[in-house]
Amino acid sequence: MKVIVIGASGTIGSAVATQLAQRGHVVVRASRRGDVPVDIDDAGSVRRLFATVGDVDAVACCAGNAAFRPFPELTDADYELGLRSKLMGQVSLVRIARDCLRDGGSITLTAGILATQPMAGSASVSMVNAGIEGFVRAAALEMPRGIRINAVSPPWVAETLARLGMHAAVSLPAADVAKAYVASVEGTQQGTILHPGQSH
Amino acid sequence: MKVIVIGASGTIGSAVATQLAQRGHVVVRASRRGDVPVDIDDAGSVRRLFATVGDVDAVACCAGNAAFRPFPELTDADYELGLRSKLMGQVSLVRIARDCLRDGGSITLTAGILATQPMAGSASVSMVNAGIEGFVRAAALEMPRGIRINAVSPPWVAETLARLGMHAAVSLPAADVAKAYVASVEGTQQGTILHPGQSH
Repeated sequence: MKVIVIGASGTIGSAVATQLAQRGHVVVRASRRGDVPVDIDDAGSVRRLFATVGDVDAVACCAGNAAFRPFPELTDADYELGLRSKLMGQVSLVRIARDCLRDGGSITLTAGILATQPMAGSASVSMVNAGIEGFVRAAALEMPRGIRINAVSPPWVAETLARLGMHAAVSLPAADVAKAYVASVEGTQQGTILHPGQSH
Repeated sequence: MKVIVIGASGTIGSAVATQLAQRGHVVVRASRRGDVPVDIDDAGSVRRLFATVGDVDAVACCAGNAAFRPFPELTDADYELGLRSKLMGQVSLVRIARDCLRDGGSITLTAGILATQPMAGSASVSMVNAGIEGFVRAAALEMPRGIRINAVSPPWVAETLARLGMHAAVSLPAADVAKAYVASVEGTQQGTILHPGQSH
């Protein structure tokens, strides 16, 4: 399959791109600053990406920002960041990919475990991640031409925690998180929220 | 208790206001067009409401719009409606009520069963409702002064279905839906998603 990985320069995205390539797929590594530029906040750049690459079977999105801050400190701009970037950036990607992917293709978005297992500081992130999960479950009912849509809800990524000097009760190496994206791309799931570390 | 019901002129809101009054609470019936005006999309009007009423123990929000349309027909404006009104209108209410409610008070928002049980046409509504549920679960971890926050996720309301000439597999009369709001106001739940028709 020909697969676009968006956010391919990130911790999760690079692991997803590597594994898909190892499994024989043609992988297009897209990111905000790279040879194949895309910014999910900018619908025009997403349309150009699909037009340039052509004949795309699957897209996996490992991009999107949201603000993790104590609830009393979250500003209007913090909420707006999550709504514009991680939530509506990914929704916009789906609306474009729905029309551009080949028949029987697939879309894999990124939500996050904070959707259902919140912690202090996650009010905006939990809202955004849960919104993505709700959207994916619903949009799956109306995808055309056999196109599938799923979301991966990762726990904390071990490499990210190490970089931030943080600890969490549950974390997984990026390579293990990436397996859920591969499962979504290669599998038959539709409207499913995949939880890395659990069997798929 | 003194309770503000927002959206008190609506099908659910009027049932909530009636039941709370019957149970001896002082109920302030607020709505966009009424004696006590408020529009959750307008933070200023919400602040004026709390300042005018004063000494509020609880607020129950039965207001907020989102667009129910086939997924291929949903426009940018449709998504924006749900984000601005039902999602961020209610989040804004929480940010204000958190500072204005009396110690030990409570906030009850409205999500909807489409958050977890979608149907064709619900992509935007499911996204918004799920976002509210995720936000409530997370914000509950950081509420000050013993203030509680919960959401009610109603199924289709029988009176609404009848008015629209629609049918649904599961529906409840507004009076039964209202019981979940009463349970949230009078109970001890925190960060809970209440499903009307199930025991609380």
